[in-house]
Amino acid sequence: MAHLGSSVEYGLHCLLWLAEPAAAAASSRDLAELQGVSPSFVAKIFPRLEKAGIVSASAGIHGGYRLARPAARISVLDVVDAIEGLKPLFECREIRGRCALFDGKAPAWSTQGICSIHAVMLRAEQRMRAELAATSLADLASTVARKAPAGLNGEVRLWLGDRLDARVKARAGDSPGPPPAGSSARPRRRRAP
Amino acid sequence: MAHLGSSVEYGLHCLLWLAEPAAAAASSRDLAELQGVSPSFVAKIFPRLEKAGIVSASAGIHGGYRLARPAARISVLDVVDAIEGLKPLFECREIRGRCALFDGKAPAWSTQGICSIHAVMLRAEQRMRAELAATSLADLASTVARKAPAGLNGEVRLWLGDRLDARVKARAGDSPGPPPAGSSARPRRRRAP
Repeated sequence: MAHLGSSVEYGLHCLLWLAEPAAAAASSRDLAELQGVSPSFVAKIFPRLEKAGIVSASAGIHGGYRLARPAARISVLDVVDAIEGLKPLFECREIRGRCALFDGKAPAWSTQGICSIHAVMLRAEQRMRAELAATSLADLASTVARKAPAGLNGEVRLWLGDRLDARVKARAGDSPGPPPAGSSARPRRRRAP
Repeated sequence: MAHLGSSVEYGLHCLLWLAEPAAAAASSRDLAELQGVSPSFVAKIFPRLEKAGIVSASAGIHGGYRLARPAARISVLDVVDAIEGLKPLFECREIRGRCALFDGKAPAWSTQGICSIHAVMLRAEQRMRAELAATSLADLASTVARKAPAGLNGEVRLWLGDRLDARVKARAGDSPGPPPAGSSARPRRRRAP
């Protein structure tokens, strides 16, 4: 199994649609369907991104997720850590102290400092993390923008706008009359977008 | 789950006992018991190391595994790849071509070149691998040697020698008489040490 799974892949691809400065808030369902991946899978990813301060959520039919800070200040590493939760490259079981010669009583020298095998793995992990930290969502978005035709972002906004319109109309059909004064047509409970 | 599992950890620790220039051949069982880890687990690791040309095996009661080349020419990466089998850091599912706007027909520009998300992951993997390649078994062994008391390697040789002696005696007890001329006391089938 790969170390960084499909949650990271789906999360990054969906976040790229929010990286454009003019992007409106979008639900995780719309982002997932725009990207052609499982909405129920993506619905589990966005709360983790929100918890990590990468996206912020707003409620209501016009609500949804937006980036919580500029795309240039969100690194691939931020997204990986938010989704995967600091999964280590290697877990040291400290077996260096189990040598049969020690007869169950590992001498101090044998477990002093960090295990040399663990140290190599930590250095390798650090290199990997530094590389993931060196690329931001803005960098990824500009790579995609260099390839894509000029009108793509506009088309995406239209596609998301059409879905919102359809929802607004469907909801209006659900509650045909205006709500009584002082009341709300829908409870104002904050929903995950 | 960590990317590099206990097979890598056990394999590296056991190989360190073979990195000393004066090390005799040792069975995977003796190496596992010397290190205080599961012999059946280690028995599955050594054939992979042999297949990758990291250790070589010799048959017979005095046989066992030795390093197949000098410890300075065996990197941590060689051992990781031999044991884990080139497990990728990230598997790209090419979801960039699935955008709903493409309506099932991804335009050429959308799948041209490597996916920018995959490219970041490949760079991160490359950094990780370069760091694992930069440390050899000889480097690890010298780090351990700097910590350990001077007599440790001698004690290890004695411990392994005692186990060999016990096996030789036990086998002699099994077959008290010399084998008839032209025959062999045991079939000469090559055994995994």
